[in-house]
Amino acid sequence: MIGEKIYDLCRELFPINRSLTGDGVRKTLNILKRELPELNIFEVPTGTKCFDWTIPKEWNCKEAYIIDPDGNKICDFKVNNLHLMGYSIPANKILNFEELESHMYSLPELPDAIPYITSYYKQRWGFCITENQRQNLKDGEYKVYIDSTLKDGNLTYGELIIKGESKEEIFLSTYVCHPSMGNNELSGPTVTTYLAKYIQSLKNRRYTYRIIFIPETIGSIMYLSKHLDTMKQNIQAGFVLTCVGDNYSYSFLPSRDENTLADKVSRHVLKNAVSNYTEYSFVEDRGSDERQYCAPGIDLPVCSIMRTKYDEYKEYHTSLDNLDYISFKGLNGAYEVYIKVIEALENNHTYKLTVLGEPQLGKRDLYPTDSTKDTWSIVKNMMNICAYADGKIDLVDIAEKINIPIWELYEIIYKFKNEKLLSIV
Amino acid sequence: MIGEKIYDLCRELFPINRSLTGDGVRKTLNILKRELPELNIFEVPTGTKCFDWTIPKEWNCKEAYIIDPDGNKICDFKVNNLHLMGYSIPANKILNFEELESHMYSLPELPDAIPYITSYYKQRWGFCITENQRQNLKDGEYKVYIDSTLKDGNLTYGELIIKGESKEEIFLSTYVCHPSMGNNELSGPTVTTYLAKYIQSLKNRRYTYRIIFIPETIGSIMYLSKHLDTMKQNIQAGFVLTCVGDNYSYSFLPSRDENTLADKVSRHVLKNAVSNYTEYSFVEDRGSDERQYCAPGIDLPVCSIMRTKYDEYKEYHTSLDNLDYISFKGLNGAYEVYIKVIEALENNHTYKLTVLGEPQLGKRDLYPTDSTKDTWSIVKNMMNICAYADGKIDLVDIAEKINIPIWELYEIIYKFKNEKLLSIV
Amino acid sequence: MIGEKIYDLCRELFPINRSLTGDGVRKTLNILKRELPELNIFEVPTGTKCFDWTIPKEWNCKEAYIIDPDGNKICDFKVNNLHLMGYSIPANKILNFEELESHMYSLPELPDAIPYITSYYKQRWGFCITENQRQNLKDGEYKVYIDSTLKDGNLTYGELIIKGESKEEIFLSTYVCHPSMGNNELSGPTVTTYLAKYIQSLKNRRYTYRIIFIPETIGSIMYLSKHLDTMKQNIQAGFVLTCVGDNYSYSFLPSRDENTLADKVSRHVLKNAVSNYTEYSFVEDRGSDERQYCAPGIDLPVCSIMRTKYDEYKEYHTSLDNLDYISFKGLNGAYEVYIKVIEALENNHTYKLTVLGEPQLGKRDLYPTDSTKDTWSIVKNMMNICAYADGKIDLVDIAEKINIPIWELYEIIYKFKNEKLLSIV
Repeated sequence: MIGEKIYDLCRELFPINRSLTGDGVRKTLNILKRELPELNIFEVPTGTKCFDWTIPKEWNCKEAYIIDPDGNKICDFKVNNLHLMGYSIPANKILNFEELESHMYSLPELPDAIPYITSYYKQRWGFCITENQRQNLKDGEYKVYIDSTLKDGNLTYGELIIKGESKEEIFLSTYVCHPSMGNNELSGPTVTTYLAKYIQSLKNRRYTYRIIFIPETIGSIMYLSKHLDTMKQNIQAGFVLTCVGDNYSYSFLPSRDENTLADKVSRHVLKNAVSNYTEYSFVEDRGSDERQYCAPGIDLPVCSIMRTKYDEYKEYHTSLDNLDYISFKGLNGAYEVYIKVIEALENNHTYKLTVLGEPQLGKRDLYPTDSTKDTWSIVKNMMNICAYADGKIDLVDIAEKINIPIWELYEIIYKFKNEKLLSIV
Repeated sequence: MIGEKIYDLCRELFPINRSLTGDGVRKTLNILKRELPELNIFEVPTGTKCFDWTIPKEWNCKEAYIIDPDGNKICDFKVNNLHLMGYSIPANKILNFEELESHMYSLPELPDAIPYITSYYKQRWGFCITENQRQNLKDGEYKVYIDSTLKDGNLTYGELIIKGESKEEIFLSTYVCHPSMGNNELSGPTVTTYLAKYIQSLKNRRYTYRIIFIPETIGSIMYLSKHLDTMKQNIQAGFVLTCVGDNYSYSFLPSRDENTLADKVSRHVLKNAVSNYTEYSFVEDRGSDERQYCAPGIDLPVCSIMRTKYDEYKEYHTSLDNLDYISFKGLNGAYEVYIKVIEALENNHTYKLTVLGEPQLGKRDLYPTDSTKDTWSIVKNMMNICAYADGKIDLVDIAEKINIPIWELYEIIYKFKNEKLLSIV
Repeated sequence: MIGEKIYDLCRELFPINRSLTGDGVRKTLNILKRELPELNIFEVPTGTKCFDWTIPKEWNCKEAYIIDPDGNKICDFKVNNLHLMGYSIPANKILNFEELESHMYSLPELPDAIPYITSYYKQRWGFCITENQRQNLKDGEYKVYIDSTLKDGNLTYGELIIKGESKEEIFLSTYVCHPSMGNNELSGPTVTTYLAKYIQSLKNRRYTYRIIFIPETIGSIMYLSKHLDTMKQNIQAGFVLTCVGDNYSYSFLPSRDENTLADKVSRHVLKNAVSNYTEYSFVEDRGSDERQYCAPGIDLPVCSIMRTKYDEYKEYHTSLDNLDYISFKGLNGAYEVYIKVIEALENNHTYKLTVLGEPQLGKRDLYPTDSTKDTWSIVKNMMNICAYADGKIDLVDIAEKINIPIWELYEIIYKFKNEKLLSIV
């Protein structure tokens, strides 16, 4: 099961402290490059203008902790990188308990969880702690030590272009800016890595695949600002891969348009491949890089197939979204669904019957010769292809019309094309 | 409350005997001109051709009554002008009870009501009486006296054009042809008068407003026959104001097209501003001047927002639709709804975000600085404007899409325009 | 009742052994030509290419039976032509019971029925028998005798063109290739014959009618291959007439497009003329010549109004679909529905009101002068014609919009046209 390998990669990447920028991102991308040697890693300097935004300073941290009044080291960044608020500025000071409190974050409703907090665009520092631990802190003097740097540097991202027969592209985008958490986000870049391996293994690849590993929001804005024209011209369908690791449910977030090819294929695959799924609303529930890819004037056909969606599980953005929250099976299920989506896209054409009236299938030995319980459904599917391959609707539409999974048509299409009964419009 | 002033105007206009033509209409329009000095009053001569119709003779009446066998004066026009059938020809004769009966109208199912009856296009005379009074009439000789005139004259109407920045027009049409009745019709011209005052008070008025006070049917046909080209070219949305005076319900009658801008804005305002309303069907329920404005080849975007719709309350077209049937609150509610419609039309544009990708709202101090329970909804609305101001759908569509009242977006739009984040398409 | 005459024609045609080709078809068409002297009968030689198909050899049979071990003649073709598998090759041999078994067809679930079986495109022979009779056969030697011929010849079909004012055509297609069965198929050609008589009787016939009597599948493919261009250019609506003889239900099978004029009119007529009907799905339920008429690239607007649909009644394709299964009333009902469809098509135009605003109906004496309970509905229908005859939607659409049967509008349309109030767009 590929899910095991994906899980192993998650485990390897888990301890690294990722953020919008910094060495954690570089380290993560280098590990992915080991898996995908053709991955290109790029650096974009601080201060670079990207549409309405600017690449921020690069943030790195060597060490961070608090010494409590009894001399114990708590909130140690080395123990769990979630303890330190992302983008915390350096600090080295003595504070009393009250002063410290205004820099501490915990979740009373989830007392065992360290929350994940960042402050990208406002310079400050903070520590995250479980509510249970916080309740045990006592009055007295605390020493705060943060050995971080926030200075001009780069934003780092990875890009893998896998060429196909056509310049038309399928786009996969995932992010690498969260520290040690499982579903959101390590499931995203790891499943994407294994999808990239699968795509590379395809013979007669029809589409070119554009696959990027970026920091969320600023990364997608930066990437769009560099490649918008090409992307608008070529991308036929795109997907934000995030929250693809747990085994609890399937979710679908459509594009802003709601009815692009990406949306149509996603819904068709989910409807036919998994027992049930929740369709969310772009209006109400969007929250990741589809916000940028679908923004007015950008208008890319990008949606998101997920397992349990961000913001929809209590462990989200806490230390409880860990390696236990995700699973072999969860990762594998998402991987399989995306494979089916890719297969559907690769096989989806608008076909037109080359003969007028029904073809005489008998004289071509196209009827199944055995008589199993599937025979009738194969004949029915063949006749339906004859009736609906009218050069106007594509194969996904036909599959929807005749209410069967598109993958049950691939072999018929193959045989019909061999018999020159179908042409591609 | 404006409703009180509107009610006072109803009270002043109530006693006047209005009809399709005649001095009652002139008197009514002169009182409205006192309120709206820029109102222009026009006269159209009897015999003027208007599409398939002809302006009828002018009708006036000084006195009308019946003397019963006991010498009592009954059905006195001076006591209640509904007693005389509209457009009754002169009469001065003695009849027996049986002969009189064929000229009398009453409502057995509403025994205390004098019905409102007219005979515009067939020359005859008649009296209207409560069923209770009719039951007490006895055999004997009755003297009938009607001092009316029906001769060449004019049809009188009022027109007020309030110029705006654009030649594009909003159209308000109401009628002044019913004698002493409250909801249908005095609520119509009085609410329209106060809306006209409101429109005159607007600074930076975007639209030009065409507001007319006409007799029903023949008046709208006449007005269309004079102004059709201009109206078809300029009118963006129009409304027939009638039955806007009681406090029992809200009603909506769409245009024939059912989906014009006028319909869209009306439904949006009603859905968000009043607790509930009934949408009627143009096919089944039309009945006033929208029949002309929406006729084939005329095709104006005209609908009607009402309180309790004509034909849908038992007091309709009787003496029971009096000053007690309408109320301050009823008139005020309709006035407020129409104000919201006008505001929505004035603010409705197709906006386009000027930046690609989401704008960085933080650097522009556009996030609310206080943290009230509304803060999140304001941020959400801002982000939704960023996502949906795509230059394709208008602000009403966005409000519908994100399911909030359009008026909650006005301030955001204002701030975004100030920051040059939005342009008007 | 026309149904009786149609039934008599069924009875006359019933005994004839029809098949894809052969003298039974000729005999049938000659009887129809007696009813419709202008029917043209055509012969298409074996081997003629028709799109992807080829006209098969002509099959005829003089005699066929089995002699059982006791010397009894069973499965005698002269007693019931269903006993012989259609297109059986000649045979004259002695077989034991076991050998015979592989050539025998019966229906265990319908033990009194002789099934109807053919083998058009694979050369073999067979006999059909009731399950009850089959159970009584015993071991021993059987003599099989089939005096059939399968050799180059012709496929025979009939065509009747009834000219109208326009070159635009209504198309009726029915088939004449089944031996002695009632609903499927004799009801089809017989109802079609009487519809043709009705159409010939029409004065001022608007459409040209193309009416064909063909063998199923190969016949429609052959006919299309000869006339496709003309048919695509002219046919406005078409119908496959089959299964129009029983009295149990009404059925509708739409065209592949599902929303052609033929579909729209059929649904409107069925909805308003019969108490209820079943709409089948082209995807799931198609099965007759609409498969060819609606094939990709052919795309004719052809649907099918039926009584109980083929495949939906247990007697289908057995000896139980006999003259008892169909009835006067059943045939008559289908005939009446098709008459209403033809009337609707003949009367359906896109009308446009010639005056602007509502016409003044009073001055033209168009209001009903009597006051019956229908008066108000006639006035309402007149006003609705005035409101919706906008030159954009046709009369069927108007009837649907105002929710009345189209036939209640014919007289109003007639009067309005007389008054020059309507023009045809």
